[in-house]
Formats: sequence, C-alpha cells, structure tokens
Amino acid sequence: MGNEKQPWWRTKIIQSEKNKLMMRGYRVEELIGHIHYGELVYLLIMGDLPSREKGKLLEATLVAGADHGVPAPSIVVSRIAATCGIPLNCCVATGMNLLGDIHGGAAEQLMRILYELQEKTRIEGEKRSVLVRRTCEELKGKRQFLPGFGHPVHDDDPRVRRLFALVEEARAKGEVEGKFVEMVKTMAEVVQDLYHRQIPINIDGACAAVQCELGLPWQAAKGLFCLSRGVGLVAESLEEFLQGSRLKSPMPMPLWEDELLYEGPGERDLPEIFKLKG
Amino acid sequence: MGNEKQPWWRTKIIQSEKNKLMMRGYRVEELIGHIHYGELVYLLIMGDLPSREKGKLLEATLVAGADHGVPAPSIVVSRIAATCGIPLNCCVATGMNLLGDIHGGAAEQLMRILYELQEKTRIEGEKRSVLVRRTCEELKGKRQFLPGFGHPVHDDDPRVRRLFALVEEARAKGEVEGKFVEMVKTMAEVVQDLYHRQIPINIDGACAAVQCELGLPWQAAKGLFCLSRGVGLVAESLEEFLQGSRLKSPMPMPLWEDELLYEGPGERDLPEIFKLKG
Amino acid sequence: MGNEKQPWWRTKIIQSEKNKLMMRGYRVEELIGHIHYGELVYLLIMGDLPSREKGKLLEATLVAGADHGVPAPSIVVSRIAATCGIPLNCCVATGMNLLGDIHGGAAEQLMRILYELQEKTRIEGEKRSVLVRRTCEELKGKRQFLPGFGHPVHDDDPRVRRLFALVEEARAKGEVEGKFVEMVKTMAEVVQDLYHRQIPINIDGACAAVQCELGLPWQAAKGLFCLSRGVGLVAESLEEFLQGSRLKSPMPMPLWEDELLYEGPGERDLPEIFKLKG
Amino acid sequence: MGNEKQPWWRTKIIQSEKNKLMMRGYRVEELIGHIHYGELVYLLIMGDLPSREKGKLLEATLVAGADHGVPAPSIVVSRIAATCGIPLNCCVATGMNLLGDIHGGAAEQLMRILYELQEKTRIEGEKRSVLVRRTCEELKGKRQFLPGFGHPVHDDDPRVRRLFALVEEARAKGEVEGKFVEMVKTMAEVVQDLYHRQIPINIDGACAAVQCELGLPWQAAKGLFCLSRGVGLVAESLEEFLQGSRLKSPMPMPLWEDELLYEGPGERDLPEIFKLKG
Repeated sequence: MGNEKQPWWRTKIIQSEKNKLMMRGYRVEELIGHIHYGELVYLLIMGDLPSREKGKLLEATLVAGADHGVPAPSIVVSRIAATCGIPLNCCVATGMNLLGDIHGGAAEQLMRILYELQEKTRIEGEKRSVLVRRTCEELKGKRQFLPGFGHPVHDDDPRVRRLFALVEEARAKGEVEGKFVEMVKTMAEVVQDLYHRQIPINIDGACAAVQCELGLPWQAAKGLFCLSRGVGLVAESLEEFLQGSRLKSPMPMPLWEDELLYEGPGERDLPEIFKLKG
Repeated sequence: MGNEKQPWWRTKIIQSEKNKLMMRGYRVEELIGHIHYGELVYLLIMGDLPSREKGKLLEATLVAGADHGVPAPSIVVSRIAATCGIPLNCCVATGMNLLGDIHGGAAEQLMRILYELQEKTRIEGEKRSVLVRRTCEELKGKRQFLPGFGHPVHDDDPRVRRLFALVEEARAKGEVEGKFVEMVKTMAEVVQDLYHRQIPINIDGACAAVQCELGLPWQAAKGLFCLSRGVGLVAESLEEFLQGSRLKSPMPMPLWEDELLYEGPGERDLPEIFKLKG
Repeated sequence: MGNEKQPWWRTKIIQSEKNKLMMRGYRVEELIGHIHYGELVYLLIMGDLPSREKGKLLEATLVAGADHGVPAPSIVVSRIAATCGIPLNCCVATGMNLLGDIHGGAAEQLMRILYELQEKTRIEGEKRSVLVRRTCEELKGKRQFLPGFGHPVHDDDPRVRRLFALVEEARAKGEVEGKFVEMVKTMAEVVQDLYHRQIPINIDGACAAVQCELGLPWQAAKGLFCLSRGVGLVAESLEEFLQGSRLKSPMPMPLWEDELLYEGPGERDLPEIFKLKG
Repeated sequence: MGNEKQPWWRTKIIQSEKNKLMMRGYRVEELIGHIHYGELVYLLIMGDLPSREKGKLLEATLVAGADHGVPAPSIVVSRIAATCGIPLNCCVATGMNLLGDIHGGAAEQLMRILYELQEKTRIEGEKRSVLVRRTCEELKGKRQFLPGFGHPVHDDDPRVRRLFALVEEARAKGEVEGKFVEMVKTMAEVVQDLYHRQIPINIDGACAAVQCELGLPWQAAKGLFCLSRGVGLVAESLEEFLQGSRLKSPMPMPLWEDELLYEGPGERDLPEIFKLKG
C-alpha cells in the first residue's frame, strides 16, 4: 500500500470485456433501442440517466443549434472541405474544429457566470437580481459584452422563445427549478437598462440557461454544441459532396475582385544578395 | 434565360431570414421539443422526417457505436488532446478526424456492397443468395476481407444481436423490409463456408445493414459514425480534462522502454560539409 | 527467441535519452544551425541528409506551393477559423486537413504514375515515350484527367518553369537524372495531341516531377505539401487574427442573397404525430 | 467617399493574376531556388526578407523542435491516425491540432512576457533585472510556473545550449541584440533563487527568446511550432503508414489491463421506465 503503482488511465465511463460492453454500468444492449440520443449524452457525461423530461430538454438544445445554413463559418468550412477530396468524417471534424470561444463558445462562458452567480447567492445570501446586476455592470466596466447576448440578424429568435417555453413546462412538472432561465431573463433587463437598447438573448445564451437547469458542467458546453452542430455539418458536407464540386472557393471568381483587397507592397525585385546564393 | 448566372451555393437544407429558421421546410421552433435527435439526423440528411419507428432504429445505431473505451484510437487520441491545452471542441474534432476507412469506415464499404447487390437483384433477376456468394468469392479472390466482419475481441457482439432484433421488430410492423439484414446474415454463412471458420458480423456491419434498411445513402455512413462516436469523444475528453493531466503520453514512461524499439542508425557525426556552412 | 515479444512501436527516426536527442543518428545540437529546413525534411523522411543541391531542390518545391492567396480553399478556411476563437495551431490544422486528393493531392497520384512508368521501363525494356503515351491513352479511355495537369487560371505557371530550370541546373551538375521531368514534359505533348488543346503542367505536376527526381516516396507527397502550404496557413491565419474580425462568413451578407439558392421544400407544418409526443 | 464599401477580405501577403504570383511583392519564381524555407516563413509573417543570419536563426528554431519521438503526444497521435485509414495530410493535421497552450504553447506565453518586460523597461526606465524578478515573484505568488521552464527528462537540454550559442554568434555580428536571451537567463537565476532548485530553460523557452530576438510577434509562436513539429509529424506518420498497422491502440492489449482502471458503477439493470418506451 502507499507505494502501489497508479494505473495510467482512469475512467468511469466504459467497461468492456469479451462480448460485453457497459456504459456507466448499463449493458449496451439494454441501452440500444431504449434510450434516446440525448439521454445517452447525459448518461455518458453525468454518470446516470436523466429523467425522460430532462432528456427531452437536452435534446431540445441539440436540435436548436444543429444548423444555421451555409453562411455560418463551421458549415461553409465543412462544405468547402467536402470539395477537397478528404473523407466525410474529416470534413465534419474540420467544421467542428471551429466551434471555439467565438463560434458557440458563449454558452460555456455564460454557464460559468450563471453557476458563479448561483454559488454567490448561496454563500453571500444576497438577492440574485442584485448579483446579476453587479455582474453585468462589471462586464460593462471592462468593456466586455455579456456572453450569450446579441445577434447580427435575429432580435427575437424563435429558438430562444421555444427553449424557454420548454423549461417553463418542465418547471411546472417540478423537473427543473427554472432559476437559471430567470437569471438570464433578468440579465436581459439589466442589459437593456445599462446599454439603453434591447440586446436579445441569443441561442448560445438560451442553451446555456437550459444546460444549467440540467446541471451539466460548464466545461461540457463546447462538446454539446459539437454534437448539435455535428448534425448540420454531416448533412451539409454530404450535400456538397453529392453535388460533386471540386476545390470550391467560397465565392465565384468575379466577386473576389471586389471583395479582396491587396494592401501589401507592390511588385519588387529580389535583392541581389539572395540571388547570389548557391 | 440560358445565360443566367447560377448561384455559387445551392442547398435544400436550411432557409433563414430575420427571426425565422426552417430546416427542410419545418420551422425550427416546432422541431425543438418535438423531435428526437435521430429524427433530426434523418430529416437533415434525407429531406423529410422518418416514421417514429425508423427514427428509433437510427438512434439505436447511434447509441450502439458511441464509445468502446479508452483503448479505441479515436477515444484515446481525444483524451490525449484534452491534456494539451486546446478547447474541448478541438479535442472532439481531433478524435473524429480518425474515423476513416479503417476506423468505422467498414460501414460505408458494406453499405455500398449491399446497395449494389440489391441493384443487381433487381436488374439481373438473380437470386440474392447467389449474388451474395459471388461477391464474397470475388473478395476472397482479391484477398480482401468482407467489410463489417471480424473483431479482435468480440465473437458474439451483444450490440449486433440487439440491432438485428430491433430490425426484426420493425419488420414485423411493416416498417422495414429486413432484406439487408438478411443479406448480411447470408454473408456470414458464406464467409464461414469459404474460410472454414466463423467470422462474426461486427458493429460496423450491423450498423451498415440497419442504415440500408432505413434507405440512408452509403456516402453518409462516416458522418453517422461521427455523430455516434461523438458522444463518447465529448464525454471521455471532458473526463480527461477534468482529471487535469498535462501533456499525457499514452503510456507511463517505464513502459516505453519495452514498447518502443529504435531501429535506426546509431549515433553519428554530422558530415563536415554541413558544418562548414555559413 | 522466436516467441520473443515484439515492441509495440518501432521507429528509425528519433532516439532520445536524458539531455540527448538524435535525429536519424545525428545529434540534434549539430543539426541546429547547420542544416536547412528542407534538408531536415529529407533527413527525417529518407533516413539521411541529401546533398546540398538536392536539399535546395526540395526547398524550392516547399517555397513554390506555400501560398496562393485568400481564395484558395485551405487558406480561406484557416482565415475563417482565425475568427472563431480557437488557437492558431488549430487554425493551421484546419486548413491543412483540406489538402487531400483534390487539393494538392495530384502530386501523389502523378508521382505514383511516374514511378510505375520508370519501373515498367526497367522491366519491360520498352521506350519511355511509348509507355507514357499508353498511360495517357488509358486515362483518357477511363475519362480521367492526368493528375498534375490543368489550371483554372494559369496556362504558363512561372513556378513550373522555374522548378524545371532548377532541375536542369541540378542535372547539369550530375545531381539528378532529369528523367522524371522529361516524362512529365512528354506527357504534356501527348496530352496536347490527345485532347487537341494545350493542357499545362500545373504546380502539383511540377512538384511531383521534382520530388521523384529526389527519390522521395509518393506516399510522402501530401505531407510535403502540408509543410509547404503550412507557411501560408500560418501567415494568413495570423494576419486575419491580428485584423480582429469575429465569426467571419466568407462573403459579406448582401452577396449571400445572390450566391445562395435554397432549393428545398417551402415552409410546412410539423405533422401532428410528432406534436402529440410526450 | 466615406460611404464606400470596404472589401470583405484584406491582405498584404499574396497578389496573384494570370501566370503571375507575388509573395509580399516578390515574384514567386525569383524566390524559388533562392531563398530558404526559414526566410520564406519570415517573409510571409513579417512582410520582408530577413538578413541571411536572421533567417538562419529562425531555421535553427524550426530544426530544434521538429521531433521528440513517439511518446510525444502530437507524434503518437499522428501515428495512431496513420493506422485509421485517413489521408496523410489529415494525420499531420491531427497531430498539429494538439500543439496548444500546454504542448509547445509556453513559447507564446513567454514571448508575451518578454515583450511586456521590454516595453516596461522602455517606459518605466527601470532596470531589466529588477522587472524580471518582479514578474517571477508575481507568477510565484499566483502559483503559476514561468512558461518555458522545466522539463520532465532533460535538465541541460542540448538544443537550448546550441540555440543560445547561435544567438551569441549573431549578437557578435551585430545581427541581434541578445537582450531577450539575457532576460531568459536572468529568469533562470531568479527562479533558482525563488524555488531553491534549478529549473532549467526548456526548448519552448529557448525558442521564445530567439523568436523575440528576431522580432517575431508572440501571436505567431504556435504557428512557428506547427511548421517545426510538422516535419516530425510528416515523417513519423509516414513511417507508421508504411509499416502497415491497422487501427493501432497506443499500447498492446495486455498492458491495458494494468494501465486502465475502471472506477465507475458496477453492472446494473436499465430502469424499467426506460424499457417500457415505444
């Protein structure tokens, strides 16, 4: 004891032996055909199955962010990849690689803020709305926007409304508390007050709130968006692949003439010192 | 007409305008909370919603392949990535990039063979079992294994049995024809006959058969596996990330001494010609 | 003996111990400051250092393919990545993931053909020009283009001319034989004859010929292009990153209206069967 | 004027037209065969060619970090990728994706610190050694290690010594000032003083110092390491590919039994509520 060697890898997820595979303790053959994808996601991340209602909420967020059309960076990039002669999984991975801090990553940042606010409420015993306002003011002071707020096109995103309605349904059934959605709604009011204009909750913000209601760790947020946007990446890169284009630039050649400005040095000779080499 | 300019991008998947987003024509807010992930996958790939029974079958394949534990190349690679200081989505993409021809890609190859067999049956009017045998013999003649058969550990994979049972249920309800599962079972018999030993249908083979029953294009197979294995990639790279290891090599240092053989040239001096430079 | 366990990993490249690191047998501290990058590439791939002249030829191909501007799929994709909040190495990897069969991959295919032609010349003793013509005719018969030929913009690519001139210089010094460049030039003539129009050798074709002159394996071709285009990917994604754009779509919004055509089903209601769920 | 539309993409790197391609203004055909890879890297990132001596220094850092053998996370991951049936460029990209904050990323962090120190010296007029000590103390106070210091194996890395010797040579020729190397050496002393043990400068730290001497922006550091380690990734994944392994796990099966610990829940039944579905 004490000086026993530690195994190099430790996991609580999969146990496997010959003709047997268990996920978080459940035999895989019982999971197959019985549980939904969203329930599997929850199981593998959280360690046990959610209630069916909670599983449904998680699937709602996965459906909500699945695709926003060709102009979305992740989608266009995986479509371009599909014209370059690489396998479909690599096209999907290419798009997924983009889902970082600025492309969906707001959910992670907001979840972190929401959990911190909850923690402070618990510890400091202060009113949640007071703490929310303080957080928004601090961010404004640092000239940072609140993550999960604002959208270049939508100002009343139907996905946000629907997700919040589903949380309300689940709250009425006692499945979730609804406090994170409440916090986000309070934030929206405070933001309007601080910036003197309406800055709408966006899909990242709504997903963050729902995922907090489900108790998912904020560190999981980017992974959840991978699974959500993954559907769009598969369908769109497959569509492009089946169209058969080769080496597709994102806009047709004539448009580049207007949309690409070269601002570097003009044509020049290589200095003689380099030419004399070898 | 005729000389009208074609738009550079064409799609049948997403239509979007201010405060409105439609997936294959359905308003996203109606899809959210109503359809399951597997149904969304089918919708975005195939153009319309499946029957609920078919959606369930598709989700069954997604659950089946989600994770096979740390030693699986895709999983271990995304766990290693999680110790290198990159965002979670990039860890997931790293593992997903590996799901190529040899890592799950057998499903694509078998689906292609199965659809070709079906086509030949239709056109040549020959018995399916005759054509199946001929295909297996051709592959044997070319010293190629039949994709979707054989496994290093499992010889009676519980996932395969369960998936085939689900197809049988769906067939009894008239939801699928069951002919592709039948073909794969015939293949298993022929393979046993040709190689004089049992070579079991593996999870790639079973998923291929189910996906053919659902009419999914063979070109989609790698993408479907991305969505399935994606769950494991998210959960496992998150688990690793939360364990906090840094720059983790796949085995502890002492083991490398036995498991890494350097076979190259011994220590040697750089030739003088290179030293004299500059 | 005989039943001795084999180490799991075998390599001829790196040998390392405490305060010592050897690359193909050379002490790293002697390589640093003495050899050029192209020489290192050759050393690690081929097992020993090239002559300085050959190293120079290899570097010439690396310089030639480094960048072709924003509209190139790999470049634009890594620039888009740079606006999504992921680390620079992930932006570079994203672009590199695209350098597959259709994006630079022609070099691999042509190298393979060139080596096969050389092999046939040696074995069948037939004249090289006869074999070259036969290969071109076969490809035409299969309605396949010769890899490494044709370009959407350039018909007399200055990079190609320059690379061939460098090979000629090296041939004059007895450093290379020049037979692969000769074969490619013969191909250009045959192609003109077969298709009744000039189809120029492109940069992939020229690099393929040079890399064959250097004896590099065809399987290395995509990797070499990674190192070449890698320079462009780093510089361009860094430039984009420093410009500070966020979540950049590849064209400005108004252009999408003309360049994106939605061809799918019109707006429609979700069938009641899905709404009735849960 | 004033309301003129801005082009969507702006660049100072590549200018291209029919049969003409210029990199930072230089005609590509003059660069090919005349400049070295390291000079190209400098040109594309910095906007003009370096002196030959500076180019040599940059190439020295590229050679230094190229490969550290199979156990390095980036290398092993690209070798595993090479057994999964994906193109070589995707194997290289897979390994490159790992070169984040913890895998080579220390160079970026240290460059940032070094440039800040230089800036403070200039502005505050304080002695560099005083500022260096303050920075080290601050990091210690925050329980953060100084990036670029410490190595699990090497305590007198031959690459570090060699790089510093090359800087000294260049300083003697008036090519660089040597102040950043000096700062890093001061840091090493301060660190020893603060932690009461020698913590050696590692390869990331040495490369950071050299790259600062060359005036490269800290934001480029991860990209430079991509180009350096890229050589190893190409050579090692190619070596693995040519060995022909399929779906290689990072250690042989028997070792997993000792090195993989399952700590999750034991086998358990799926709750009836999930079985009753559908």
